[in-house]
Amino acid sequence: MTASDDLLAEVRFDARGLVPAIAQQHDSGEVLMMAWMNADSIRETLATGRVCYWSRSRQAFWRKGESSGHVQRLVELRLDCDGDTLLLLVDQTGPACHTDRRSCFYRAVRDDVLATIAEPVAGTEA
Amino acid sequence: MTASDDLLAEVRFDARGLVPAIAQQHDSGEVLMMAWMNADSIRETLATGRVCYWSRSRQAFWRKGESSGHVQRLVELRLDCDGDTLLLLVDQTGPACHTDRRSCFYRAVRDDVLATIAEPVAGTEA
Repeated sequence: MTASDDLLAEVRFDARGLVPAIAQQHDSGEVLMMAWMNADSIRETLATGRVCYWSRSRQAFWRKGESSGHVQRLVELRLDCDGDTLLLLVDQTGPACHTDRRSCFYRAVRDDVLATIAEPVAGTEA
Repeated sequence: MTASDDLLAEVRFDARGLVPAIAQQHDSGEVLMMAWMNADSIRETLATGRVCYWSRSRQAFWRKGESSGHVQRLVELRLDCDGDTLLLLVDQTGPACHTDRRSCFYRAVRDDVLATIAEPVAGTEA
């Protein structure tokens, strides 16, 4: 019995075999992004300590930062009460978002409009 | 054009007309839970300032805290880059979890097992 087995026995995957995973910067508490994982990407993430999602559009592993260098080191993996959502505490290198913003959640309802509340990080390097 | 219209035009609902919503305590940064919303529950949440989800099991509005008193006051609603996930900054009264824990994410992979890392809040009152 490994940590993966113990965890995977409790995860309730959806009909596609996927579970949503929220990535949160472990020290600041900032919610960075939400993506999806399958059993194999969870196993790889726990084994390597680097977050690996499952890309629904590409139907392939999505090793975060593999091309951009903006990797997520796993600090802790948590599971919710009914087992259908993961919370990943991570240490994010550079921006998490493909728009080069630190977080994907950069739009907010303010003053009755959907406003952009964060700009791309200048000169981000991995 | 209201805030709801502006937002809803940018939300990419899934085939069921739902979008996942992450609830985060606005000041502490604690991730409390993840649930689902449809267009009408988003409209109600923005109109009332109290978070209303859509219950997939009951196929009905789920006005958080309606029976328990553990309401979520909306502080800010954010949308991610590709419009398929919401982040709700909330002020949570009492526990968010039906197990009476503050957060639903109370299980974590530690020392090769899935450990319980938080206990129910004692004597929680709304």
